[in-house]
Amino acid sequence: MNIVPPKPALPPLSSDLISRFKTIVGDKYAVTDAGELAQYVTEERNLFHGHSPLVLKPASTAEVSAICKLATEQRIALVPQGGNTGLVGGQTPHNGEVVVSMRRMDKIREVDVASNTMTVEAGVVLQKAQQRASDADRFFPLSLGAEGSCTIGGNLSTNAGGTGALAFGVAREMALGLEVVLADGRVLNGLSKLKKDNTGYDLRNLFIGAEGTLGIITAAVLKLFPKPRSVETAFVGLKTPSDALKLLAISQTEAAGSLTSFELLAEICIDMCVKHGTDIRDPLQSRHPWYVLMEVSSSRDDARATLETILGRGMEDGIVDDAVIAANLQQRAAFWKLREVISPAQKPEGGSIKHDISVPVAAVPAFIEEANAAVVKLIPGARPVPFGHLGDGNIHYNVSQPVSGTTTKDFLDRWHEVNAVVFAIVLRMGGSISAEHGIGVLKRDELPDVKDKTAIELMRGIKAMFDPQGIMNPGKVL
Amino acid sequence: MNIVPPKPALPPLSSDLISRFKTIVGDKYAVTDAGELAQYVTEERNLFHGHSPLVLKPASTAEVSAICKLATEQRIALVPQGGNTGLVGGQTPHNGEVVVSMRRMDKIREVDVASNTMTVEAGVVLQKAQQRASDADRFFPLSLGAEGSCTIGGNLSTNAGGTGALAFGVAREMALGLEVVLADGRVLNGLSKLKKDNTGYDLRNLFIGAEGTLGIITAAVLKLFPKPRSVETAFVGLKTPSDALKLLAISQTEAAGSLTSFELLAEICIDMCVKHGTDIRDPLQSRHPWYVLMEVSSSRDDARATLETILGRGMEDGIVDDAVIAANLQQRAAFWKLREVISPAQKPEGGSIKHDISVPVAAVPAFIEEANAAVVKLIPGARPVPFGHLGDGNIHYNVSQPVSGTTTKDFLDRWHEVNAVVFAIVLRMGGSISAEHGIGVLKRDELPDVKDKTAIELMRGIKAMFDPQGIMNPGKVL
Repeated sequence: MNIVPPKPALPPLSSDLISRFKTIVGDKYAVTDAGELAQYVTEERNLFHGHSPLVLKPASTAEVSAICKLATEQRIALVPQGGNTGLVGGQTPHNGEVVVSMRRMDKIREVDVASNTMTVEAGVVLQKAQQRASDADRFFPLSLGAEGSCTIGGNLSTNAGGTGALAFGVAREMALGLEVVLADGRVLNGLSKLKKDNTGYDLRNLFIGAEGTLGIITAAVLKLFPKPRSVETAFVGLKTPSDALKLLAISQTEAAGSLTSFELLAEICIDMCVKHGTDIRDPLQSRHPWYVLMEVSSSRDDARATLETILGRGMEDGIVDDAVIAANLQQRAAFWKLREVISPAQKPEGGSIKHDISVPVAAVPAFIEEANAAVVKLIPGARPVPFGHLGDGNIHYNVSQPVSGTTTKDFLDRWHEVNAVVFAIVLRMGGSISAEHGIGVLKRDELPDVKDKTAIELMRGIKAMFDPQGIMNPGKVL
Repeated sequence: MNIVPPKPALPPLSSDLISRFKTIVGDKYAVTDAGELAQYVTEERNLFHGHSPLVLKPASTAEVSAICKLATEQRIALVPQGGNTGLVGGQTPHNGEVVVSMRRMDKIREVDVASNTMTVEAGVVLQKAQQRASDADRFFPLSLGAEGSCTIGGNLSTNAGGTGALAFGVAREMALGLEVVLADGRVLNGLSKLKKDNTGYDLRNLFIGAEGTLGIITAAVLKLFPKPRSVETAFVGLKTPSDALKLLAISQTEAAGSLTSFELLAEICIDMCVKHGTDIRDPLQSRHPWYVLMEVSSSRDDARATLETILGRGMEDGIVDDAVIAANLQQRAAFWKLREVISPAQKPEGGSIKHDISVPVAAVPAFIEEANAAVVKLIPGARPVPFGHLGDGNIHYNVSQPVSGTTTKDFLDRWHEVNAVVFAIVLRMGGSISAEHGIGVLKRDELPDVKDKTAIELMRGIKAMFDPQGIMNPGKVL
């Protein structure tokens, strides 16, 4: 399935222009072969498949600048791309745009241990950045499922969230400075290592989360943190999301900043993972309506004591019904695997309509209750599979199709209807329809309905000012 | 002294227009009396004194919106003002602008304990916000000298730093959402409580730190944190800033996120404070070339043990020469008083040329050494008085006049020369000439020399787009 309606493709690139673009990066790094192009124009799930006459693989900021300059002169649309792991089609050339793949810009320019910073190019794979920080006895806390292939440039352009956001914030909060190439080829030199700099408007945060529509991030200064010396992980069984919220409050007080993950899982997640996952087993002896996967990471040796205190208080207060602390790294990995295979484990159960929403943390229990009721009312038998980052108010509210009585196609054809009832509850609660995945093309048409009118006007004005020709990732976000 | 060169004043407001503005807020809240106006057009230090025909004191977002709409229609320049405590003249009507004083918008609209958020109007005094959080068993960590009179709107508009930035970040990092009135009266409704929201460009961070030049912040959703249960404060004597940096690294590892302050002070700070301060005494038995005032605040009961571990390791490593932990709240207050009276204690020593700079944390020792040498070479006998937030790389690099051989006036007349040598070192090290005080009018003319050219172009474009008539705090920042 391709969930983006086809549009008239852009006029074909002239061979002269293709040559001029090729000259910038060198023939070897300009892809025109259909077979080789494939990996850049579709993505893993095959939900989005575009087409492109040309993928450029620049090796330097100067090359990116030259590409943008030529593209602006000739009004050629560009789609910047990192690891091609985005979930909303932001990195896909839906209408024949030229793809600018940043993967060759993969140098770690500097690690400044005393300043706790690392300067990296946009194409550095997240896992490589994590590893390099670790080698320097530091910690780079951004962590998400795609970390083996996603890139820092993509993480920043989409303001990635992930499992470490609870303690360290989203990608936005991990970048001190940026180098950005603008649509017309100008380079914004903002590779600052400073925590405090009040000299004018904050341009950095405009590019972070802009999904490549305002410019191409070519490098960034990232914050580093002390390396955790002790990490402890628990799997907890509880009765309700409200109890999970109470446990979260206890944890935030007792962990004093070292609570690094707090993931909520509905029982159905465990059911599906145990049924369909490989080497997956329920960590607890009996079933519970709700689960929390929590982790304490400390630069001291106190994570175990902290976690025991938290669970002890949770049991005293009647919130925690059962809990197990991972006895070793293998068990810890098993806990996390359970969390990570929820989405794949839904596949054998048929179609899944997915949402990546956030609401104020206090509203999560009410959101789940109301959304479950609304979805089941709309499609009797539909099976909500809610899980996610409770501490951030961010729930991946997936809905699996009923066990019987419908086809996958019939069920998935109703995704707009399901979106509508879920988003209505989200908006009433002051939430967001895209907490961490972004807008891309997937939610672009919904944005004007859910976003403040003045905000949309300002966004359009900014887009027009930064990219008057509209060549930067056109049709995304706005 | 008035350090802003006089400019031709704006044409006088017609009495008809004054009436129309008065009608918006009500006669009682429109100040035209010269005596009453005085408190709004000068500031505490009398470094900046402006003049204005009219101060408006709106009570609601709707009134602010009506003021801006009328001002845009009639091309009347506005200067937004909070507690009037800014240090760079950003809040002063230098050329006869109408002042919009936000102090009447001082309602705390909501405290959401479970979501850890507080929704406040712009005119809420910082100390009141801190107190309200504390009453709800939460912590709002922004803290600075002027907290008894500065307002949240001003804190956000200037992206205030302060002593809590080390652990909690600057004001920018404490705001989840904003409500802003634009130049033409449109209201941006962005009072979000969400930690994760990837639906379009980050407009919030454009207004934070814009010093009222892009719009008037009328309300904000602030982050709250668990209330510290244990707070311990130490005064430490050491040999060099490099040793202080080593102690900082130990502290960040051992305190695991609960290191909330780490202030560096040169010996001359203690000299001047003890000599000129009231009830000030040196906390240590003998003098040291450098001092660190550090604080550990934990939501657990472990601050004392943490601090003792840090100081023990510092002594073992030969970094810490002497240290005392505050025995009670009174002694803790005495330590902090020492830090806070440095600037006032410089006054009896004659003129002081002040800088609020930041460099990468690792570069602080080299910065201090080079700046000291350069300043003394320029003005023999000049006395550098460096102190500040080492953990943020933010040094208040003040320079007191020589003990003899010059007058205060002659010394202060050389402030541009002193700025020039200090800023040259800052820039070479990748630093900022305004770490936390902002640009205002004080550093406006230097900005184009120190800021990336493309950044200035983008800032000008944004200003023109948000405020095409140029009525919002004209002549500030840009």
